[in-house]
Amino acid sequence: MAGEKITSRAADYSQWYLDIVNRAGLAENSSVRGCMVIKPHGYAIWERMQRALDRMFKDTGHVNAYFPLFIPKSYLAKEEQMAEGFAKECAVVTHYRLKAIPGKGVEVDPEARLEEELIVRPTSETIIWNTYKNWIQSYRDLPLLVNQWANVVRWEMRTRLFLRTAEFLWQEGHTAHATAADAEEETRRMLGVYRDFAENWMAMPVLCGPKSEGQKFPGAEYTLCIEAMMQDKKALQAGTSHYLGQNFSKAFDVRFQNQQGQLEHAYATSWGVSTRLIGGLIMTHSDDQGLVAPPRLAPVQVVICPMGKEASEREASTRAARELAGRLRELPREDFFDYEPVAVRVDEDFHNSPGFRFNEWELKGVPVRVEIGPKDVAQNACVLARRDMPGKEGKQMGIPLDAAPGKVIALLKEIQAALFAKAKAFRDANIHEVNSWDEFTKKLEEPGGFLMAHWDGTRETEDRISELAKATIRCIPDGGDTAPGKCVLTGNPSARRVVFAKAY
Amino acid sequence: MAGEKITSRAADYSQWYLDIVNRAGLAENSSVRGCMVIKPHGYAIWERMQRALDRMFKDTGHVNAYFPLFIPKSYLAKEEQMAEGFAKECAVVTHYRLKAIPGKGVEVDPEARLEEELIVRPTSETIIWNTYKNWIQSYRDLPLLVNQWANVVRWEMRTRLFLRTAEFLWQEGHTAHATAADAEEETRRMLGVYRDFAENWMAMPVLCGPKSEGQKFPGAEYTLCIEAMMQDKKALQAGTSHYLGQNFSKAFDVRFQNQQGQLEHAYATSWGVSTRLIGGLIMTHSDDQGLVAPPRLAPVQVVICPMGKEASEREASTRAARELAGRLRELPREDFFDYEPVAVRVDEDFHNSPGFRFNEWELKGVPVRVEIGPKDVAQNACVLARRDMPGKEGKQMGIPLDAAPGKVIALLKEIQAALFAKAKAFRDANIHEVNSWDEFTKKLEEPGGFLMAHWDGTRETEDRISELAKATIRCIPDGGDTAPGKCVLTGNPSARRVVFAKAY
Repeated sequence: MAGEKITSRAADYSQWYLDIVNRAGLAENSSVRGCMVIKPHGYAIWERMQRALDRMFKDTGHVNAYFPLFIPKSYLAKEEQMAEGFAKECAVVTHYRLKAIPGKGVEVDPEARLEEELIVRPTSETIIWNTYKNWIQSYRDLPLLVNQWANVVRWEMRTRLFLRTAEFLWQEGHTAHATAADAEEETRRMLGVYRDFAENWMAMPVLCGPKSEGQKFPGAEYTLCIEAMMQDKKALQAGTSHYLGQNFSKAFDVRFQNQQGQLEHAYATSWGVSTRLIGGLIMTHSDDQGLVAPPRLAPVQVVICPMGKEASEREASTRAARELAGRLRELPREDFFDYEPVAVRVDEDFHNSPGFRFNEWELKGVPVRVEIGPKDVAQNACVLARRDMPGKEGKQMGIPLDAAPGKVIALLKEIQAALFAKAKAFRDANIHEVNSWDEFTKKLEEPGGFLMAHWDGTRETEDRISELAKATIRCIPDGGDTAPGKCVLTGNPSARRVVFAKAY
Repeated sequence: MAGEKITSRAADYSQWYLDIVNRAGLAENSSVRGCMVIKPHGYAIWERMQRALDRMFKDTGHVNAYFPLFIPKSYLAKEEQMAEGFAKECAVVTHYRLKAIPGKGVEVDPEARLEEELIVRPTSETIIWNTYKNWIQSYRDLPLLVNQWANVVRWEMRTRLFLRTAEFLWQEGHTAHATAADAEEETRRMLGVYRDFAENWMAMPVLCGPKSEGQKFPGAEYTLCIEAMMQDKKALQAGTSHYLGQNFSKAFDVRFQNQQGQLEHAYATSWGVSTRLIGGLIMTHSDDQGLVAPPRLAPVQVVICPMGKEASEREASTRAARELAGRLRELPREDFFDYEPVAVRVDEDFHNSPGFRFNEWELKGVPVRVEIGPKDVAQNACVLARRDMPGKEGKQMGIPLDAAPGKVIALLKEIQAALFAKAKAFRDANIHEVNSWDEFTKKLEEPGGFLMAHWDGTRETEDRISELAKATIRCIPDGGDTAPGKCVLTGNPSARRVVFAKAY
């Protein structure tokens, strides 16, 4: 395996993705259908994502809590749209005891059947709003701004590592407010947080806006989303923020005394992002050499490779490498790195050739590689290589070791910005205005991308387009062209253009 | 509820505990049997625990990963002791689909029955070692030092918030090594990490040592543990570190090529602590006024209460409070606070009396309260009150506002040390040497505590003592009295004294 080339994007995009996930050690399928094992290098990306998002949630006034994994079956039926949308592919717990049969393994104890089956949460609106009933009495208890980091299960039939798995990790915010206006403001605020995170941490540009009626969350009044474009020009829904109105407070009878002394149902939002973001990160930046991770979320931000043939050379370069690593780790903590020390690794694997070692670190997506060979040691210098520009053009030679820590930090920041700029240029170059059905179907296939098209606003037409062209409405983009026109399929009047695309 | 006194420890220790959990907003029972809701103030303690432990795990070379929630039923049967120990009270998933019946709720789809039932993980040795089979080929792949933060489910019949719940949160380390010596060293190392965390973060003194054969983890060669004493003098097992030998590598056929080129089964450890620690923290330090949280793990470390009757007084004291809060938050980040800003809250709730407000913050366990009234404002000063010494003796008056940040930090450190010293003095005063069965049973009831007693080393006697006196062997304490003697029950020869106690 090691040293083998990964499939190129041009040859087979799907296989390229799986090769990166596999070869960079990010995740693998487990023996449990549809459930993945998130391997250390992949989980480290998730940890950085969690940390940055969690800080943003707290900075906007939210606190974390934890609610049960299991939901009584009857709860799922309480909110009608929810029942239809989620009471489908769920893991159902029916028993609570096993018996060990000596020599024969274990069996489910038929005596230990639950009175009411429990559902492994596919999302937690129901159990949380059932709990909020006891937490909310008065307008003084509002707003209630709670987030949960958790695992959820949706029994997906076709799974794909990170992008669609039966079990995945996510955060789900569930807030309660005294007025519709407050809740709608929160829905927008959290979309803004997701956009900020996607763009400034993941370096992944996103379009923002409401989903169409057909694509909204079951149980929501409306859903806002961030949509990103992958390198195959398909869309990835990367985060959603839902305005739930009073749907759940009515289903679970959560009323509060408002400032006028009247009982009123509370107004709700929910919002979430998941380990799917790791798939988005991979597909936004990576290349045919492997993973490209944006510096702020890279598990290893800097790798230092000492080199040399003779023992004395190796000793000297290793000494210089360790010293530099130490100096990098001791730099003052800064916001850009989430107040964590810079993540530096010294690669002392002299068993393999420098070329092999460089390839392995490129595969793993490390943004900056520092090379220190015997000639560098002699000059008290090093070479800096950037992952986003493999080869000579991305190399800076003869950097004095004294100046290296500052240069490395500057380079990490530069790479973060360059990745965003590159992804944005790619995305922008692949947004096309189309004005006829013929143009729609042709451009969707070649060159592909996001199509800005008029749509008559009906669910029927939306479904029809999805059937005919496999394209869905990704969002009604904020800041997009709002001039009216004619629907690309039916010719009926259209209020404005929306974004269509093939999607993950 | 608010303002009502909590039950005193003397009146009803169990109720006192539940009152604190409830009134400090730490957790509550959910509508799902045995599953708790961890409320924001309780979850914030867990977040601080996670953060500190996670750093210690990483500093000892571990990485995090994530394995599936579900375990195929047959896996539980693969390791014999494991099957007997864990294949009991487990949540069993049998179906993967529901049907919404319009107007009638949802039903489990009988067509969607799993071929093999899935067990919600009670612990992950089996699924992880099944995965390690593919990760471990050569001694170069070892050691494999992996930790997982996760939820687990054990269908406990008698539950108690934090201490014993059907679902709980924990971390589980699962490591693989090339030699028994390496794995045993790791088992010890992680016990040391737990001890360090318990003592230096939770301010909770612990005894360390092996469990007896009767109390070890099913599937382990031996189990090391940390044991703490609660204020009712009962023992709480606070963390365990297991040496698993080759039991799991044999059950899942995980072999590697050793340095001599031979195939060998890997050596394993596992170790874990859980949300149970929150129960331990509460019961170690709290008093009849409410929660007492050690400063390093307190969700709010400092509360500043501006006071005043007139609007102008309130304005002036609030301004001073906010300024002080700002200065505290901007102090250089330090190791003692895990490089987080000091957690300060300004309480501007002038609707309630100062006495009421102070009581509420005492209930919530905030280590330091800063009071700023009109007289303080006039003198550019404030009052510092420490939670671990309620009343006048814990107050420092007339602290100049300029000097307050430094004084507050020093006080937080002082309180951390004082809580540990107090808990240790209490624990040490309640360890008794007993030399006869009569003395054993009497001292166990009055005064109670940990009994250092001789035991003949047999499982039979251990079980007998547990039956007769409801006391179990907590551990064979490191550094304890190792002189031989006679078993307190049977009079048979005993190799050394062990610790008996009633336990949670």
